[in-house]
Amino acid sequence: MSRTRSWWGWGCVEDAVGAAEREALIARVAATMPGAVAAAHEPPDVATLDLPPVRLVPPASLARLCSTEPADRAAHSRGKAFRDVVRNLSGDLRDVPDLVVRPVDEQDVVDVLDWCSRVEVAVVPYGGGSSVVGGVEPRLDRDYAGVVSLDLGRLDRVLEVDRTSRAARIEAGVLGPRLEDQLRPYGLTLRFFPQSFEFSSLGGWLATRAGGHFATLHTHIDDLAESLRVVAPAGIAQSRRLPGSGAGPSPDRLFLGSEGILGVITEAWLRLQDRPRWRRRASAHFADYPAAVEATRAVAQSGLYPADCRLLDPVEAFVSAGVATGGGVLMVGFESADHPVDAWLDRAVTLCREHGGTVSERPRAVGADDGTAPDRATAAWRSSFLRMPYQRDALAQHGMIVETFETACTWDRLPALHAAVSEAATAAMREICGGGVVTCRFTHVYPDGPAPYFGIYAPGRWGSQVRQWDELKAAVSDAVAASGGTITHHHAVGRDHRRWYDAQRPDLFAAALAAAKQQLDPAGVLNPGVLLPARPGRV
Amino acid sequence: MSRTRSWWGWGCVEDAVGAAEREALIARVAATMPGAVAAAHEPPDVATLDLPPVRLVPPASLARLCSTEPADRAAHSRGKAFRDVVRNLSGDLRDVPDLVVRPVDEQDVVDVLDWCSRVEVAVVPYGGGSSVVGGVEPRLDRDYAGVVSLDLGRLDRVLEVDRTSRAARIEAGVLGPRLEDQLRPYGLTLRFFPQSFEFSSLGGWLATRAGGHFATLHTHIDDLAESLRVVAPAGIAQSRRLPGSGAGPSPDRLFLGSEGILGVITEAWLRLQDRPRWRRRASAHFADYPAAVEATRAVAQSGLYPADCRLLDPVEAFVSAGVATGGGVLMVGFESADHPVDAWLDRAVTLCREHGGTVSERPRAVGADDGTAPDRATAAWRSSFLRMPYQRDALAQHGMIVETFETACTWDRLPALHAAVSEAATAAMREICGGGVVTCRFTHVYPDGPAPYFGIYAPGRWGSQVRQWDELKAAVSDAVAASGGTITHHHAVGRDHRRWYDAQRPDLFAAALAAAKQQLDPAGVLNPGVLLPARPGRV
Repeated sequence: MSRTRSWWGWGCVEDAVGAAEREALIARVAATMPGAVAAAHEPPDVATLDLPPVRLVPPASLARLCSTEPADRAAHSRGKAFRDVVRNLSGDLRDVPDLVVRPVDEQDVVDVLDWCSRVEVAVVPYGGGSSVVGGVEPRLDRDYAGVVSLDLGRLDRVLEVDRTSRAARIEAGVLGPRLEDQLRPYGLTLRFFPQSFEFSSLGGWLATRAGGHFATLHTHIDDLAESLRVVAPAGIAQSRRLPGSGAGPSPDRLFLGSEGILGVITEAWLRLQDRPRWRRRASAHFADYPAAVEATRAVAQSGLYPADCRLLDPVEAFVSAGVATGGGVLMVGFESADHPVDAWLDRAVTLCREHGGTVSERPRAVGADDGTAPDRATAAWRSSFLRMPYQRDALAQHGMIVETFETACTWDRLPALHAAVSEAATAAMREICGGGVVTCRFTHVYPDGPAPYFGIYAPGRWGSQVRQWDELKAAVSDAVAASGGTITHHHAVGRDHRRWYDAQRPDLFAAALAAAKQQLDPAGVLNPGVLLPARPGRV
Repeated sequence: MSRTRSWWGWGCVEDAVGAAEREALIARVAATMPGAVAAAHEPPDVATLDLPPVRLVPPASLARLCSTEPADRAAHSRGKAFRDVVRNLSGDLRDVPDLVVRPVDEQDVVDVLDWCSRVEVAVVPYGGGSSVVGGVEPRLDRDYAGVVSLDLGRLDRVLEVDRTSRAARIEAGVLGPRLEDQLRPYGLTLRFFPQSFEFSSLGGWLATRAGGHFATLHTHIDDLAESLRVVAPAGIAQSRRLPGSGAGPSPDRLFLGSEGILGVITEAWLRLQDRPRWRRRASAHFADYPAAVEATRAVAQSGLYPADCRLLDPVEAFVSAGVATGGGVLMVGFESADHPVDAWLDRAVTLCREHGGTVSERPRAVGADDGTAPDRATAAWRSSFLRMPYQRDALAQHGMIVETFETACTWDRLPALHAAVSEAATAAMREICGGGVVTCRFTHVYPDGPAPYFGIYAPGRWGSQVRQWDELKAAVSDAVAASGGTITHHHAVGRDHRRWYDAQRPDLFAAALAAAKQQLDPAGVLNPGVLLPARPGRV
């Protein structure tokens, strides 16, 4: 039952891709990209890594919280982007925290920030460490006396449950499964399931404005946050629990998405839901992609608010769900804790058919969950979804380049964005890697636009993957930005998206944010280089 | 067809309470509060008002936009709170803008802010002027060379419509009816109907985080804003049109609720909706109020998302809808542009019945709108809702005190808050006025709590109403705050709610907001005293 987190790749060592899965995966890739898959490279032994020396001695009062173990430092030196995994595989660890500090209560967080502000030590808040944007990597753009990775993993309790209002006060370091375990006895769920669920934390979700896997309505952590408690070097900010308020700009919305530069979220009240009892799903196959998009838009604008509304383009449908279509597959699903959802699904199916979709539907559920097993495409896709990060690591070991680009745009811009991003990715892969495959699915849909999520798979060259990735990333991100998309819909900005984020956010907003940071973090020690350029040192 | 805005009271002169309505109103009040209604006081002739002299001469380039007409200056000197109306009635105008400036394009706004920043003139952005919290009244807490009321009413056009994404780019000065008139040809609606709809502007809604009259889901302007364009003294901030984004803290959310202290919203992209075709409603009568609250909570947590979900407590039901119940009336309604809503209403009705409600339901609509006329209680309440501000003014003329307190709290706190606020209001009215009536309805419901809206009606003394109002306001607001409610759910903070807002928002957030303001408005001229204390002058 005990499982070991991988220091270099996604998730747990025990869940890594095994021999049979690897063989099937390689065969699948070889079918579309002959010759792409090279021999596998094994990760170096963490004990042999040449880590930079530790520069910091913590005060005696904090020593009990601090680790200088090489495995700890290595594992906390970056997140889990493709770029991170490849650098780990090649033993290339440069920006490594001096200390991993694990507070056991809020006062510890206060004390760590006090110390670090005093001696000008950078602090990188660390939740589950699943960042794919360089959010937890201490790549700093000015000098500090050292770097602390502030791992909040011990703050993992549900402290209070308000069954009436369906809300709970929860410590920010808790990871998804342990959070749900603590809510289950109350019949409640946060119902927040990002792909990283197992390995990401509540605080990380809040700090990055994460998105869950539900397609519509309350799927973003922003909307689930009822109040926040934030420890900043300048003090503690606690907002009032309120279902809604019009009292000035929302204090919580300043901290939501602040990615650790304004303070450390230590706990929050979250809005919960009753566990769903009724579910129904269908999937619609389309002969052409524009019709599939129109059907998806119709569902998104219908006011039905499906839990699932995921359009796979033809390549994604084939690669991830094993379904051959001319125009892709739209998976639609509804769920409720309160009532059967037949009327909801019936209408969504009608909309799909009116837009040319062919719908395969499961028989109606008699009562609750039983009988509502997903159709074949949905089941295949879901299993593939959960294995994706592990399979990405396996492909990285074999010299492949695998990356995702997620964005959101208004419906009017989608055709041009989809074309521009697909073309930019295809051209860049051809030039940089000699070829490759690009897929697209919608992870979320809004009445005014979808959140397209592009995947690319290309043959890389071992030893050059990072450079190749950087070039691909730039080419595709440029296309996303030029097409009016956001540089990130739910992966955050971190350090890797800074160039495009800087062009996207209004300059005046950046000035306001920097001024706010100066108030909350006067020494400028919190996650320097994320969202904003680090300020010059005090000297 | 031409209508004249009242300089002293709500809305248009032509719509003021007439003789028959006045008689009925007075009779209704006299029935519960014998002796409360005094003789009517007529408003002074605006031409006879003793206004302070004009201190400013605008630069020649701006002169064409400026008015020093006494009627203009008087009408722009405050909003439409009870306190404002009573002071107007008694001819008490002290804080009056020197100039009313009406820009015709964005460059005018830039030029006005430039001039005012240079010569240290305070600028009060003015949309529809319907503030009930002192938001547009130049009660300043430091000296300025003068005050400009920046009336955006000429920026009233819909500039662009994206039918596909259902969004439009709209100038911020437009009032509700003219906005809807411009959207109607596209079959679209903003579907945002605050009680002030006729007399409030898009920019005002955005700047105050206003709430529409729909009870759930996308009823707040915050959620309808796709992107904003803001002119600040330091420059222009334009956010990207996006259906969703996780790129740092939301820039728009800093300006939403900023009440004119950070910049002037000149235009925005708003999310629109198709005009509803199907509607169904019911109302449930309850024998006791706790059961009615539980039924409302069940509907709020059901995931049905009614357009209407308004619980009137027994006093409100009697006073406003003429219905006698032991526990109040819950009005529930659904509407859709896409599908019949029978399944939705059926489930809501079941929930009401399961919680002891007696439901009177209209026959099902065959097709679209026809046949869906509201039941008697709903119709009576709605007509009363629209007349409320006019009737308030009539009662003010007769020496009454009429005020509302709106808040939101989590469900677990509601019973204590409802009791505390009712008791505080009753006690304060008894002490200050010798008696009075307090009512409560929910204007909005969320899964985690309702937004209760309290009304008070008490006999005042002509000449003392403002002082009496101030004492009542303080006593009831103290009770709201002490019970864990927000000091405002959708009326904003302005100047009148500052004391409670200052205690409610985290101090660190106020520091961050002040630092942001310093960046955007270095001279500190924008709406000084709202949300934050004005900074000391530059001297």
